[in-house]
Amino acid sequence: MTLVRFGPEGAEKPGLIDTDGQIRDLSSHLADLTPDQLSDTNLARLAAIPQDSLPVVDANVRLAAPVTGVSKIIAIGFNYIDHAAEMAVDVPEEPLVFTKAVSALSNPFDPVIEPRAATKLDYEAELVVVIGKRAQYVDVTDALSHIAGYTVGNDVSERAFQRERAGQFVKGKSADSFAPFGPWLVTRDSVADVQNLAVWSEINGDMRQQGNTNQMVFGIAEIVSYVSQFMTLMPGDLIYTGTPEGVGDGLSPPQYLKPGDRIRIGIEGLGELRQEVVHGP
Amino acid sequence: MTLVRFGPEGAEKPGLIDTDGQIRDLSSHLADLTPDQLSDTNLARLAAIPQDSLPVVDANVRLAAPVTGVSKIIAIGFNYIDHAAEMAVDVPEEPLVFTKAVSALSNPFDPVIEPRAATKLDYEAELVVVIGKRAQYVDVTDALSHIAGYTVGNDVSERAFQRERAGQFVKGKSADSFAPFGPWLVTRDSVADVQNLAVWSEINGDMRQQGNTNQMVFGIAEIVSYVSQFMTLMPGDLIYTGTPEGVGDGLSPPQYLKPGDRIRIGIEGLGELRQEVVHGP
Repeated sequence: MTLVRFGPEGAEKPGLIDTDGQIRDLSSHLADLTPDQLSDTNLARLAAIPQDSLPVVDANVRLAAPVTGVSKIIAIGFNYIDHAAEMAVDVPEEPLVFTKAVSALSNPFDPVIEPRAATKLDYEAELVVVIGKRAQYVDVTDALSHIAGYTVGNDVSERAFQRERAGQFVKGKSADSFAPFGPWLVTRDSVADVQNLAVWSEINGDMRQQGNTNQMVFGIAEIVSYVSQFMTLMPGDLIYTGTPEGVGDGLSPPQYLKPGDRIRIGIEGLGELRQEVVHGP
Repeated sequence: MTLVRFGPEGAEKPGLIDTDGQIRDLSSHLADLTPDQLSDTNLARLAAIPQDSLPVVDANVRLAAPVTGVSKIIAIGFNYIDHAAEMAVDVPEEPLVFTKAVSALSNPFDPVIEPRAATKLDYEAELVVVIGKRAQYVDVTDALSHIAGYTVGNDVSERAFQRERAGQFVKGKSADSFAPFGPWLVTRDSVADVQNLAVWSEINGDMRQQGNTNQMVFGIAEIVSYVSQFMTLMPGDLIYTGTPEGVGDGLSPPQYLKPGDRIRIGIEGLGELRQEVVHGP
């Protein structure tokens, strides 16, 4: 099942993409796609609704981030071997965990806002896990059952803030608009093999990243299990699972984002973000 | 004004401590102390209510964390010179910012839960800032106006997770129960000089930390302004502002927390946390 949220900002409704690719309105069955709606039981309830019974929505409607009420954003650093190499760091021996501020959350077609004083603004195409069931001390073998589904994210980064400003990554990962995700939440059962999906990004029409989730250092199940040893993952939490090689910072010379740049980021079967970089306040 | 939340878990009501030290029930004036209630305007509205008109509450009632709906927790590392020295690190040239997961939030008299596999569980007595007004690109001179008030926090830490597990601090700062705060939210106008308050901690009756907020490397206004350059602070966000020397990890030999230990952490004028360490699940 492919879930979406559609409509004007602040008045989004839940919906799904039917087998013909049409958007259908789910709002008579639930108020919104909030964390409490992401359990297996509830997703099965939604999947059981005859799609023909749901009103068709105009194909040109705005799509928003497919879940609202996210309580935390976890991200994994250097989780593709070739990306670690281009950033001149060793492949981590265990997952490198950092966070992004929830105030950075944005929608799949929102602009990326250049922060004041930014000099090294960058993109990162990433598969994003959406947690469906509370996860604490979860075994690898049981980890996937805690996932509601998958979506596409851009782990927007300011490299100078991240690396040159005393320490922790969060400083370069948390400006407003730095955590777009969407446009779809594809439920876990609808992804045949989450460790074999093409991941790509394109800047102003130039292909920059062309990876595959089969190149991850730590796979999805391992990541969920690992993070759950250190903190409790809650329904609606997001995990950005790392990016393949080809970020602007890894090019020679580096090519950072600037206002006017157009970003496309996609993952096989999960849809595509389309964003423009704009000046900030 | 000194605000509290009182009553059984999940059914807390807002209240205040009156000039005689009695708890008064504010629930006929607001539903709860949520982020949207922390504006200067709203706090002035509450302060204008004649205290005699408010029902007195039993002094033995449970006090909970004084704000609910916290959306992010920021913390500042090595912000007291003597603590940086005991941890054998240089005093940061600019604030070292890290985060704690919101799933770690807990109440002022809740137990500290020892995480599975913990070997170096530690306490940190800290002044905690509660944001009252959205803060983005705020000047130092204007920063304090974005603060609703102050409270006491224990930045509970697992030093092995923090330092020996690939990178970022968040891994050792985010287990369930690692972010207790309370028992009071003392509004900004009721603290004469936030940079001159005694901060202390006591473990099993032994005084461990005896610092003062006048020893901070970066003051409260500077911290709020600084963080607001990298992310937008929202009402209800917490900033743990660093700890003075005397943490268990800094003792020779180190003395880590173990189940059964009793922790008291206090700040002059802001009240006191009382917690017991317990085995985890």
